[in-house]
Amino acid sequence: MDALLDFATRLLAQLQSPTLAFLLGGILIAALGSRLEIPESIYKFIVFMLLMRVGLDGGMSIREANLADMLLPALFAVLIGAGIVLIGRFTLALLPSVRTEDGIATAGLFGAVSGSTLAAAIVVLESEGIDYEHWAPALYPFMDIPALVVAIVLANLYLKRRDGSSEKVRIWPIVKESLQGSALSAMLLGIALGLFTRPEQIFEGFYDPLFRGLLSVLMLVMGMEAYARLNELRRVAHWFAIYAAIAPLLNGLIAFALGYVAHVLTGFSPGGVVLLAILASSSSDISGPPTLRAGIPSANPSAYVGASTSVGTPVAIAIGIPLFLGLSQVVFGT
Amino acid sequence: MDALLDFATRLLAQLQSPTLAFLLGGILIAALGSRLEIPESIYKFIVFMLLMRVGLDGGMSIREANLADMLLPALFAVLIGAGIVLIGRFTLALLPSVRTEDGIATAGLFGAVSGSTLAAAIVVLESEGIDYEHWAPALYPFMDIPALVVAIVLANLYLKRRDGSSEKVRIWPIVKESLQGSALSAMLLGIALGLFTRPEQIFEGFYDPLFRGLLSVLMLVMGMEAYARLNELRRVAHWFAIYAAIAPLLNGLIAFALGYVAHVLTGFSPGGVVLLAILASSSSDISGPPTLRAGIPSANPSAYVGASTSVGTPVAIAIGIPLFLGLSQVVFGT
Amino acid sequence: MDALLDFATRLLAQLQSPTLAFLLGGILIAALGSRLEIPESIYKFIVFMLLMRVGLDGGMSIREANLADMLLPALFAVLIGAGIVLIGRFTLALLPSVRTEDGIATAGLFGAVSGSTLAAAIVVLESEGIDYEHWAPALYPFMDIPALVVAIVLANLYLKRRDGSSEKVRIWPIVKESLQGSALSAMLLGIALGLFTRPEQIFEGFYDPLFRGLLSVLMLVMGMEAYARLNELRRVAHWFAIYAAIAPLLNGLIAFALGYVAHVLTGFSPGGVVLLAILASSSSDISGPPTLRAGIPSANPSAYVGASTSVGTPVAIAIGIPLFLGLSQVVFGT
Repeated sequence: MDALLDFATRLLAQLQSPTLAFLLGGILIAALGSRLEIPESIYKFIVFMLLMRVGLDGGMSIREANLADMLLPALFAVLIGAGIVLIGRFTLALLPSVRTEDGIATAGLFGAVSGSTLAAAIVVLESEGIDYEHWAPALYPFMDIPALVVAIVLANLYLKRRDGSSEKVRIWPIVKESLQGSALSAMLLGIALGLFTRPEQIFEGFYDPLFRGLLSVLMLVMGMEAYARLNELRRVAHWFAIYAAIAPLLNGLIAFALGYVAHVLTGFSPGGVVLLAILASSSSDISGPPTLRAGIPSANPSAYVGASTSVGTPVAIAIGIPLFLGLSQVVFGT
Repeated sequence: MDALLDFATRLLAQLQSPTLAFLLGGILIAALGSRLEIPESIYKFIVFMLLMRVGLDGGMSIREANLADMLLPALFAVLIGAGIVLIGRFTLALLPSVRTEDGIATAGLFGAVSGSTLAAAIVVLESEGIDYEHWAPALYPFMDIPALVVAIVLANLYLKRRDGSSEKVRIWPIVKESLQGSALSAMLLGIALGLFTRPEQIFEGFYDPLFRGLLSVLMLVMGMEAYARLNELRRVAHWFAIYAAIAPLLNGLIAFALGYVAHVLTGFSPGGVVLLAILASSSSDISGPPTLRAGIPSANPSAYVGASTSVGTPVAIAIGIPLFLGLSQVVFGT
Repeated sequence: MDALLDFATRLLAQLQSPTLAFLLGGILIAALGSRLEIPESIYKFIVFMLLMRVGLDGGMSIREANLADMLLPALFAVLIGAGIVLIGRFTLALLPSVRTEDGIATAGLFGAVSGSTLAAAIVVLESEGIDYEHWAPALYPFMDIPALVVAIVLANLYLKRRDGSSEKVRIWPIVKESLQGSALSAMLLGIALGLFTRPEQIFEGFYDPLFRGLLSVLMLVMGMEAYARLNELRRVAHWFAIYAAIAPLLNGLIAFALGYVAHVLTGFSPGGVVLLAILASSSSDISGPPTLRAGIPSANPSAYVGASTSVGTPVAIAIGIPLFLGLSQVVFGT
């Protein structure tokens, strides 16, 4: 009961944090018909700035990290990414009025990771003064790529069985397409630069100080985008909206449980467990859709993009982040 | 005589302030045919950043403000906005070789408010260390919306009488269109976020430190734009240029007088009086034109946009700001 | 031998500096097929920000500079700009399988100056704590314009002799075209604002703190661009690639020698000598190409733009900067 009250208080406090407030503000002004617009080029640049900052930070901390500590969380990230898609395959994709390939593609997008949601979670952790392994964001590709690969393979197996074709699905092009995506390649480049060069000065003088402010602008854009995409979601079966509301929390809870195992076995920090849960809770908004479009051309983007952008991402940020933070307080007693 | 000398000195000093210098620099390099270009998307983002900063600041200060103090200035703002248009209706719009609807639309634009000019005035006040009520920028919509509403209503009454049509002018769509404009909705969102959430950290770490620098870039763009629009102004009657040179100063003086009344009656600060005068002096550059285009489709945008952008705004910034500051020193003895 | 070892160590250290690391990172991710993209409008704005910063700094320091000190370096800059083109005219442009006008245009671009390379050199000098005359960047137009003028005149003389036409080449339009280019006019405006107004506050609060960070983004873009243009270079004679690899170093060495003369005669600082060498080493990427396209319409842009962007600029930054810094340590013993 106390824990519930504490959680409610925390949620209310989070609603006042800039990260959430700008997201909700974006939804609000879009709903009120505002003509405010953050240009596409600014949006792209902000995403680059955030992921470069996350990557540089990760790379610099990997220098001093014990690589063995990363093994178990990385393995769990792979299992979570693949597992989320398998769960979606045998729930959402089997529902009546849901085309199987649309269900699989949606599960793939929810298994994949959103760099923006990750950045939001990092800002909240840092605002609350909660420590985490700074290499934890580097778990991103370990969850993202298996999810997209499994989704595309499952969809193609299904379509082949149905159509009796016998083309082989090739894994490497999917992996390559994912790694070449703009969000992931900005973060991986940042990791490489943080690992092999000396970017401390520009990290501390440029990328880090602009991090929170740029995130507030990004949250505003994501809120406006979430509202704008609602129309697309209305055109597909209701199941997608229901899945998009539940999956981020369920997926996050599974990841939280596995993160807890890593905490017990190898001392993975509570902050790291929260980040792993948020990675699982998030659904891809930038890099995932084009990969899925190429890999499952017959799936309907309105279903998976609509579900992810207009419901999945707001749920992951506005409910997921305070939920997993609150859970971590209860579980780890911090 | 001393006051005049003091004013001349102040004007010269203002010409060296970055705000003015970048505006004049923009006019200069455009006149010299420079191919320098600040992309449209950067311009839009800068306007967003400035108005969000002004809004956040306003919202945070309204939290601690005595709302009763805002009543009289807000009432005066409404009167000024409507009054400027009425004055224009019975001077500019009656002149020979001025089409009545063009004259009314121009007066509407000069009654409406420019977020960029407001931002410039705030930077100058803060550079000079002059206090003002931080909620004063929130007077913006109280002046902006009545001006546009009155202009569109007057123009439509005139056109109906002339053409004998009997369509009714509806007020609410004009108000809604104004509130949904990109500049005003950015500022109102900022006010709401400042009022209801806790944005102190990103205000102090992001929006506020970038304020002056971004304003310098915006001034450069506005200078280049002012020069580029001169051609449009040349194509319409000279009266528009003459009105655009005089109205900002006259409107500002009227507002200064009313602000002085508020100072005597309710203690409105000298800095607040200057801001009220600048709001009246400014003419809308972003949000006003599309509202007028929708509301008075037969008016010629070359007349009102040309007058506002190429003469009105430079006059308000380069002459209005030092004039009202100097006047405030003489009147309030600060 | 020690000097060589010292130079190798310095080169390795430079490879870890953010400036170089982001350039190489850009080449790397472009080669790996990343879809990361820094929008064109962001790129243009960054170039503006960097050159405005360099210009403001220059203008503020010219206020206190002894103008007589600038005479000899400015004269040398003119000689170097014209000299580089003359050397190219009688080497590259005479080679078999090189069209004469393509060779002259390429030499013109290598005589002209790159604002981005200049900004990179300034960041490296400031990181290493090496003093330089802050007016030295103002040598830019003294080298840039003579190079473009000489190239266009030589090419037109050649083409006329070949075709027997008798049109006169006019110098002033070329000079004007250069001065109106976006990079040069941003820097000249910055110099004027620094010289005649008081921009200290926004220089220290905005343009200067963002300088290094924005440069890192620009280096990334230039790296990606260098890779993307390699294809164009492959379509023209190999001589262009060979010239582009050698000319930046050779031109820089000539400028270093002349800078040394200025050091002995008028006390030009070691840092200033390095900057003069880098100005000579750099090749124009923004302003030069359109001027050459207008002045020598029959020359093939794939040859000169490809050579400059994909080989010349990376060589000037990645080899030139550490080379001339190392040389300065050996020569001046600092």
